[in-house]
Order: sequence, then C-alpha cells, then structure tokens
Amino acid sequence: MATTTAAQKRAEAKAKYDAFLAVCPSRKLLDRISDKWVMLILTALGSGPDCVGEPRPMRYSELSRVLAGVSQKMLTQTLRALERDGLVTRTAEPTVPVTVTYELTDLGLSLHQMTRGIKLWAEQHMDDVFAERNSYDARVA
Amino acid sequence: MATTTAAQKRAEAKAKYDAFLAVCPSRKLLDRISDKWVMLILTALGSGPDCVGEPRPMRYSELSRVLAGVSQKMLTQTLRALERDGLVTRTAEPTVPVTVTYELTDLGLSLHQMTRGIKLWAEQHMDDVFAERNSYDARVA
Repeated sequence: MATTTAAQKRAEAKAKYDAFLAVCPSRKLLDRISDKWVMLILTALGSGPDCVGEPRPMRYSELSRVLAGVSQKMLTQTLRALERDGLVTRTAEPTVPVTVTYELTDLGLSLHQMTRGIKLWAEQHMDDVFAERNSYDARVA
Repeated sequence: MATTTAAQKRAEAKAKYDAFLAVCPSRKLLDRISDKWVMLILTALGSGPDCVGEPRPMRYSELSRVLAGVSQKMLTQTLRALERDGLVTRTAEPTVPVTVTYELTDLGLSLHQMTRGIKLWAEQHMDDVFAERNSYDARVA
C-alpha cells in the first residue's frame, strides 16, 4: 500500500514553489521581503532585551526612531504588508493618544534569523566591500 | 601594558558600522543586497552540482535562463554592481562570440548562505503567508 510519509510531504511542500520561476507566487513574496526596511524592522523586532532571536514588542514611535531616516509613509506601508503576511501583529491600546505596538509572530521570528544575518553581513563586510570597490574602480579607470 | 586582543579587534569592527543609522554606509550596502535579483543570482551561483554552498560558475546566458523573467538590462546592472562590490568575478574568454562566466568569490559565498535562506523561506512559507493574507483580508473586510 502506497503511503505518504511526513518526509515525503515536506519534500513535496518544498518543491511546490520555486522563486526562480517568474510566475511563481514565491517570487513576489521574495521581492517583498528583499527590502531594506523589512530587514531592519524584522531585525529590530527580534532583538529581545536579553538575547537576539527573542521577540521584542515595540511601539510605532520606537520603531520609527530605531529605523533612522524612514518616512512615516514607508514605515506604515511596510508594517501593514508585514501584518497582512502574518509576520507581525499590531495591537492598539485605547489610551489617549492610542498606543500601537508591533510584535513578531512565530512566522516573523522564523524569518528574523536570516534578515538579521543580512544586516550583520553588511556591517561586518563593509570594509571588504570598500576595498573591492577601490580596486575595481582602479582597474576600470 | 594595554594590548588589543583579536577578540577586541573583532568587536570594534562589529561596532564600527550600524545599518540602523541612515548615514552609515552599511545602510546603502544593505539596500543594495536587499534585492530579489541579488538573492536569486547569489543563490544560483552558490548551488554547486554536488552541494549547495559550493561555487557554481555560470555563463551569462545560463544565469539569464535560470532567473526567468529578468531583463537583460537588470541582469547586467546587478552583475556589474556585484562585481564592483567583490561578490562575483567576471571572466571573458576570447571565443566568438565571447564567453562570459560569472563566479562567486569567497566574499560572495559568505553572503550566499543568507540569500539562499531568504529564497527558501519564501518558498517554504508561501502557503502560511497565503493563509495569513486570507485571514487578514477577511478581518479587514
């Protein structure tokens, strides 16, 4: 009798989407999460007080301060898209003015590790990239 | 006598750049690598025949085929930026027509792991995100 094992099911689920294909919906999802504001928001919301990789609920105003230079429009749009995709929750408390808090969901936390890795990579390899650019520009000139 | 240990040096290098700051050059680097084409190019060039995480040199035409739907202009621009940043090398062989091959550098390979993770995440969580979107749209409607 042919039965489907859990491992087979996982393999099928894996093979179902392929972001290399233009028409695959995962291509659009990849496009959405490949965004510097998504990287920074998820990194901030996943840097708990005691350790990274723990959710750290943040107010809108706090996020806006941590993500220096982000416009209100961009932050609001990005947070709404993340909320719709199930990566963050938005909680509004009926204070005056209203207190809005964002928190990573488990789904958001599962992406946090990678987005944090991308941000750290940029910071840790900035000097290497500067050196490479200088060398490239000298070769081309 | 005060000496600087290797660990201290690493910690200093880490603290030197912070992509949360708008003026930090790592913010711009983060912006450059947070791009779906960068994610797909690095993933493709790091998926060796025997295992992922090994460089897999690819011709321009091959990359163009694997990254379905990418325009020639976008692919060329992205590859040039990656070459300038030291993430890929470009080798042109004097055949007719000329054979152009791209290959990940060690620096590119160090980023590959994360970009591959982001692509896989999008593929493996597409169904979760669909469910979240449906639930969000039903709540909002």
